[in-house]
Amino acid sequence: MGKGRKFYLEDIPLDEAWGRFIAAMESSGAWAGFSGEDLPIDEALGRVTAKPVWAALSSPGYHASAMDGYAVRSVDTIGATETAPKRLTIGPEGQAKYVDTGDPIPSWADAVIMIEHTQHIDEETGGESIEIQAGVAPWTAVRPMGEDMVATELVLPANHLLKPVDLGALAGCGHATVSVRRKPRVAIIPTGTELVTAEQAARNGLKSGDIIEYNSLVLAAQVREWGGAPTRYPIVIDDYERIKAVVREAADGHDLVLVNAGSSAGSEDFTASVVEELGTLLVHGVAVRPGHPVILGTVTNKNTPIIGVPGYPVSCALTGEIFVEPLISHWLGLPQREKPRLKATISRKLLSPMGEDEWVRVTVGRVGERTVAAPLSRGAGVITSLVRADGIVRIPRFSEGVEAGQDVMVELYRDPSEVNRTIVHIGSHDLCLDLLAQSLAESGRRFSSANAGSFGGLTALRRGDAHLAGSHLLDPTTGEYNISYVKQYLPGVPVVLLTFMHREQGLIVAPGNPKGIKGLADLARDDVNYINRQRGAGTRVLLDFHLDKLGIGPESVKGYRREEYTHLAVAVAVQSGAADCGLGIAAAARALNLDFIPLEKERYDLVIPRPHYESDLLRPLLDLIHGPDLRRVVAELPGYDTTHMGEVAIEL
Amino acid sequence: MGKGRKFYLEDIPLDEAWGRFIAAMESSGAWAGFSGEDLPIDEALGRVTAKPVWAALSSPGYHASAMDGYAVRSVDTIGATETAPKRLTIGPEGQAKYVDTGDPIPSWADAVIMIEHTQHIDEETGGESIEIQAGVAPWTAVRPMGEDMVATELVLPANHLLKPVDLGALAGCGHATVSVRRKPRVAIIPTGTELVTAEQAARNGLKSGDIIEYNSLVLAAQVREWGGAPTRYPIVIDDYERIKAVVREAADGHDLVLVNAGSSAGSEDFTASVVEELGTLLVHGVAVRPGHPVILGTVTNKNTPIIGVPGYPVSCALTGEIFVEPLISHWLGLPQREKPRLKATISRKLLSPMGEDEWVRVTVGRVGERTVAAPLSRGAGVITSLVRADGIVRIPRFSEGVEAGQDVMVELYRDPSEVNRTIVHIGSHDLCLDLLAQSLAESGRRFSSANAGSFGGLTALRRGDAHLAGSHLLDPTTGEYNISYVKQYLPGVPVVLLTFMHREQGLIVAPGNPKGIKGLADLARDDVNYINRQRGAGTRVLLDFHLDKLGIGPESVKGYRREEYTHLAVAVAVQSGAADCGLGIAAAARALNLDFIPLEKERYDLVIPRPHYESDLLRPLLDLIHGPDLRRVVAELPGYDTTHMGEVAIEL
Repeated sequence: MGKGRKFYLEDIPLDEAWGRFIAAMESSGAWAGFSGEDLPIDEALGRVTAKPVWAALSSPGYHASAMDGYAVRSVDTIGATETAPKRLTIGPEGQAKYVDTGDPIPSWADAVIMIEHTQHIDEETGGESIEIQAGVAPWTAVRPMGEDMVATELVLPANHLLKPVDLGALAGCGHATVSVRRKPRVAIIPTGTELVTAEQAARNGLKSGDIIEYNSLVLAAQVREWGGAPTRYPIVIDDYERIKAVVREAADGHDLVLVNAGSSAGSEDFTASVVEELGTLLVHGVAVRPGHPVILGTVTNKNTPIIGVPGYPVSCALTGEIFVEPLISHWLGLPQREKPRLKATISRKLLSPMGEDEWVRVTVGRVGERTVAAPLSRGAGVITSLVRADGIVRIPRFSEGVEAGQDVMVELYRDPSEVNRTIVHIGSHDLCLDLLAQSLAESGRRFSSANAGSFGGLTALRRGDAHLAGSHLLDPTTGEYNISYVKQYLPGVPVVLLTFMHREQGLIVAPGNPKGIKGLADLARDDVNYINRQRGAGTRVLLDFHLDKLGIGPESVKGYRREEYTHLAVAVAVQSGAADCGLGIAAAARALNLDFIPLEKERYDLVIPRPHYESDLLRPLLDLIHGPDLRRVVAELPGYDTTHMGEVAIEL
Repeated sequence: MGKGRKFYLEDIPLDEAWGRFIAAMESSGAWAGFSGEDLPIDEALGRVTAKPVWAALSSPGYHASAMDGYAVRSVDTIGATETAPKRLTIGPEGQAKYVDTGDPIPSWADAVIMIEHTQHIDEETGGESIEIQAGVAPWTAVRPMGEDMVATELVLPANHLLKPVDLGALAGCGHATVSVRRKPRVAIIPTGTELVTAEQAARNGLKSGDIIEYNSLVLAAQVREWGGAPTRYPIVIDDYERIKAVVREAADGHDLVLVNAGSSAGSEDFTASVVEELGTLLVHGVAVRPGHPVILGTVTNKNTPIIGVPGYPVSCALTGEIFVEPLISHWLGLPQREKPRLKATISRKLLSPMGEDEWVRVTVGRVGERTVAAPLSRGAGVITSLVRADGIVRIPRFSEGVEAGQDVMVELYRDPSEVNRTIVHIGSHDLCLDLLAQSLAESGRRFSSANAGSFGGLTALRRGDAHLAGSHLLDPTTGEYNISYVKQYLPGVPVVLLTFMHREQGLIVAPGNPKGIKGLADLARDDVNYINRQRGAGTRVLLDFHLDKLGIGPESVKGYRREEYTHLAVAVAVQSGAADCGLGIAAAARALNLDFIPLEKERYDLVIPRPHYESDLLRPLLDLIHGPDLRRVVAELPGYDTTHMGEVAIEL
C-alpha cells in the first residue's frame, strides 16, 4: 500500500474548491497574469497581447493616391465642363502628374483625377497634357496620411487574442514584433503500472489487464487548444517514490502539473500523499460528477499548482474543462471562454444525486419545431459519450434531476449551426447505420443515432424526439413487419415506411460452436448461458415470439435477464465468454469472427414522419438510400439483402 | 506598360464568378477532396479525418472492475444480510479476489463488491476472507468488455474535425495513427515595387511612397487558421517576367496560388496578363465591394487554381474570406463555416450602390434592450476597420442600402457573448479613451468607441445607440460645459454627468511654429491654411464661438471646410504640411512632436443615462474613473488636469 496514508474523499462544492485553489495561488503569486515575450508578427496568430500596442508609424505615411490617375491642384480644375474642358500640363513642374494607386501625391497637389476621367494629349509643342471635363474638390481620391492609423494611437489593447487582420494592423503601423503572453507550460504525468501507450498497443496488442494510456493525449490536446504548451511525460508506474520524483521535477519547470489517476483513495492512489509531502493538499474530492476524485494543491517551494486528475476518461476530460481551462485563460488574460448555449427539451428523465453538480453529455437535434437534447451514456469510462456529445447539461447539486420533456440549457461543444444539419435517429440498432452515418458525413449531414430498440424508436417519433426510427418488429399474427405496430403506436400520424434492407437474424456462438448449439431450443439447456437484448428491441420481440412457440418460459433460459443494447455488444459477450450465445445479426458475428446459426430473414424499415421525409434535411439520406453506392457497401456485409432497399413499404 | 494588354474590369456577380471557378476546377480534377496522410495521433488535433475510423480493439478489452473491491460470483453472495453476513474466502481458487478499478475480473467472477462494503477477516485457519452483509446482482460494478467501443464499430466518420476527446477515442480503440486530409498548400505572392517588409520598416523607417507589405501576413494567417499550409513568397517587384516566373514555380508546388495586388486594370497590373499567358483567365472583376478587382483562373498544365487578390488591405482580407476559405474547407471535406448571426438595429443610414454586394464592417453592442450595429469606416484601405469590426452586414446587390433604425443581420467575427460585455461609447474623441479602453480590457470589458463629436454622442444617447457619450460643449451664455446641452438634447432622460478630466485646447502648429501663429486671429491670414473638425464636434463649437467673438467669418478662414474627425487626424494634417494649424488638444500635438499654442482649459464629461450608470456592465468603468491608476496615467499626459476626475457634475 506504498507510503500513502489512508484518505477519504471529501465532497467539496465546486466553487469552494476553486476558491481555495485561487486563494493559495494568489498568496504565492502564481495567480498573476503571465509576462510577455516578443515574437515576430508572423508567428503571433492566436497568441494574446501582453501589452497595449500603440502605432509606431502613421498609415498611410503620406498623402496617397486612392486611384490610378493624375495628381492635380484642385484650384486648377475649377470651371472645367464637357463643353469647356481644361488642359493641365503634365510634368514635374506641371499641373498634373501621373500616380498609381498608393503613390504619394506631390507636395503641390491636393487631389487626384481618376485616369478614366482624363484624356491624354500629345501637345504640338512636344509636351504632354491631360484634358478634363469636370473640376474636383480638394482632397478628392486622396487617402490622407494617417487615414488608417496615426502614430501614437492605440491599435490593440493588451489581452487581445490575435486574429489574422490584427497581424496586418500591427505590421502596418510599423511593428515587426509583438509582445505576447508566454504560453502556460503544463506538465502531464500519466501514472499506472497497467498502462501501455497507444503505440505499444498498436504494435503488440493488449494483454488482459493492459489499459491504453490516452488521457495524456486528451489533456495535452486540450491544453494546446486553450493556448498552453503541454509536456507529456512518459508513463510512471505506481511507485510512490518514482511518482514523487517526477512530480518534483515537473513542478520546477512548469506552471501547472497534472497527475493523471491515482487521485482517488484506493490502495495505489499515491497522488494525495505526494502532494501532501511536497507541498499543500488543498482539496481532495470535489462534489462533481463525473470527476469526483479531483486533487488540488501546490507543490515544491515554487508553489506550483498541481491537479490530481481522475483516471476515468470522461472524468479526466471534464476535469480539464472545469479546472485547467479557466486557469490557462486567466494566465493569458483572456475572459472565461463561454460555450454557446441553446435551450432544448430533454428527451428522457434524468435522475441525479443531490449534493453533486452533474455534467450530463447530450446529443442535440432540431426535430421540426423542437430542439431535443438526448442524454448519452453517463458512464465515466465511456469516452465515446464525449466524442458523440453535442453539448453538456449541468444538473446543479441542489437538484435531483429533470423530468422528460422539461427544458434544459445545453452548453454546446459545436456551433449551433451544426445542430440544424443533424439528422436524429432513435430506434433499432444495425451496423448499416454506421455506413449511413459515414456517407451522410460526406454530404454535410451529421447523423446522430441512439439505440433504443424498435419500440423505443416509435415512442421517440410519437414524442417528436427524432426524425426517423429504424424498426424490425414482426407481427406474429400476420407475419408482416412494422406496419401494424406503426398504426398502433403512431395513430393518425402521416408516416412513410421505407425499407432499408433485409437481414439475417440468428444465434451468435463462439468459434467452432463448442456447446453444439443448434437452435433456440438449446436455450433451455442448463449448460447454455444466454445473453439477451433489452426490452423494446425487435430482436427481443423475435426471441419471445419463438420461445413462446417452443413453449420455453423465460425463467428456464439462463441469462435471460442480462440485457445488452446492440448486436455488437451481444457478440462481444459471446466472444469474451460471458455468454455462450445470443440472438443477433450475421454481420455482428462476422465482425468479431464468431460463428452464426441463421434463424430468420427479417425486414428492417426506416419509419419517417412525412414532414421530415419531405424536408431538405433528410434529402441526402433519401438520395443515399436510393443510390447505388450505399446499396453496394451494404450488400458486401454478410447477411444483408438489398433487393428491396429504397422501396416504400407503405405510406400511412 | 509591360506586357499587360489593356483590361477592363468586369462586374460579374459573386455566385456566377464562383460557379465558373468551381466548374473549371471540376473539369481539371482540382475540385476533388484531398487524400489522406497518416499522422501520429498526438499530432492530429484540429486535422480532418480522411477516412472513417473503425475500432481496431474493444474497449475495455476485458470485463473490468469498475471499483476498488472484491471480484465474486454473484451466486455466492445470495442471502447475505446484516444479521446473517456471509464469508467468502480470498485467494486464486477462492470465492473472492481483490481488484483495483480497471483490473480484469477473474473468469470465474461475474460481479464486484466495493471495498467499503466488505470487512477483511484473518481466519484462524491462517487463510483470509471477506465478510459481506448484502448480496450483489450479476455484473454489478463490472464494465463489460466493449462497453465503450466494440472492435469493428464506427468510431469517427470521415471529414471529422479532430477534437481533444476524439484523439482519446482513437487511441483507446487501438490506433496509434490516423489518416487525415493533407493540408492545402497555398502560395502567397506579394507583388509591388513600392513594398517593403515589416522588418525593413521597423529597422529603417519608411520613405515617402514606401508601403509596408502586410497582406501576405494576413492571408497566411487566414490560411493557417482555416487549416491550410501557407507559403509566403518574398516580395516580387512589378516586372511582368519575374511575376510570371514566380507564379509558374508556385503553381507547380501548391494547390492554390494567391497573387496579391496587380489584380486591377492599371498600368502596372500584370496579374491578369500572367494568368492569361500561363493558363485560363476565368473572371476579372467581381461585383463585390470592397474587393472588386478579383481575378480567378487556373494556370500551368497542372491547372492550379489562382486568385488575383486586390491590394487594398480590407479587400484583400475579405477576398480571403469569400474565395479562399470555402475552397480550403471544401478540400478538407468540412462544411462551409458559418459565422454566428445576430439581428441588430443599424445606427445610421447606409447607402450602397446597386449592382454590387457590399460587405459593411460594423461594431455591435447591446444597449439596454437593443442590439445596435454601428457602421465603421468603409474605406478599403482602413485595416483597423476590420480589426475593430465585431461583424459584417451584407448589403445585397439588388439593394440601395438600409435606413437608420432598420434591422439587419450581422455575421459576427466574435462569439455573441462578447457583445454582451461591450461598452459602447459614441461621442467626442479624446486620447484618454484609448487609455480607458486599455484598462477596461484588463477588467474583461470591451470598449467600442466611435468618434461622432459631442453633439453626435448626445444624439446617439437619445436614440439608445450608446451606453455613454464623451462631451465638452461650452455654453457661451453661461460659461458652463455640457449641462445646458444635455437638458436640451435629452429632455426628461435621467442622466449622470461624470467629469472625466479637464484638458487644454489650443492651436496645433508645425515644430518651431514657422508661420508665427499666435492665436485664432491669425486664421484670417491669407498664408495660413487651417484644418477643421467636423460639425457636431465640441472643438468646432469652440472654434465657431471664438471666431464669432473675433468677428471672423468662416469664409475668411482658408481650409475651414476641410474636416477631420479626431484630434490626432488634425495633428497629422499639420505634421504632413497639408495644413498650417488646427484646433485640438495638447496631447495630440505632443504625440506627433508638434508645437502647441494653449487657448483654453475645458471640461470633458462622460454623459451616462442612469440605467447604464447603474448597470453591472459599466461598473468596471466607474471603478476605473474613481480609482487611482487611470488618474495617474491620464495626469502623465500633457495638457490634462485630473483634479475633478470622477466627480458628478450634475444628475438630471
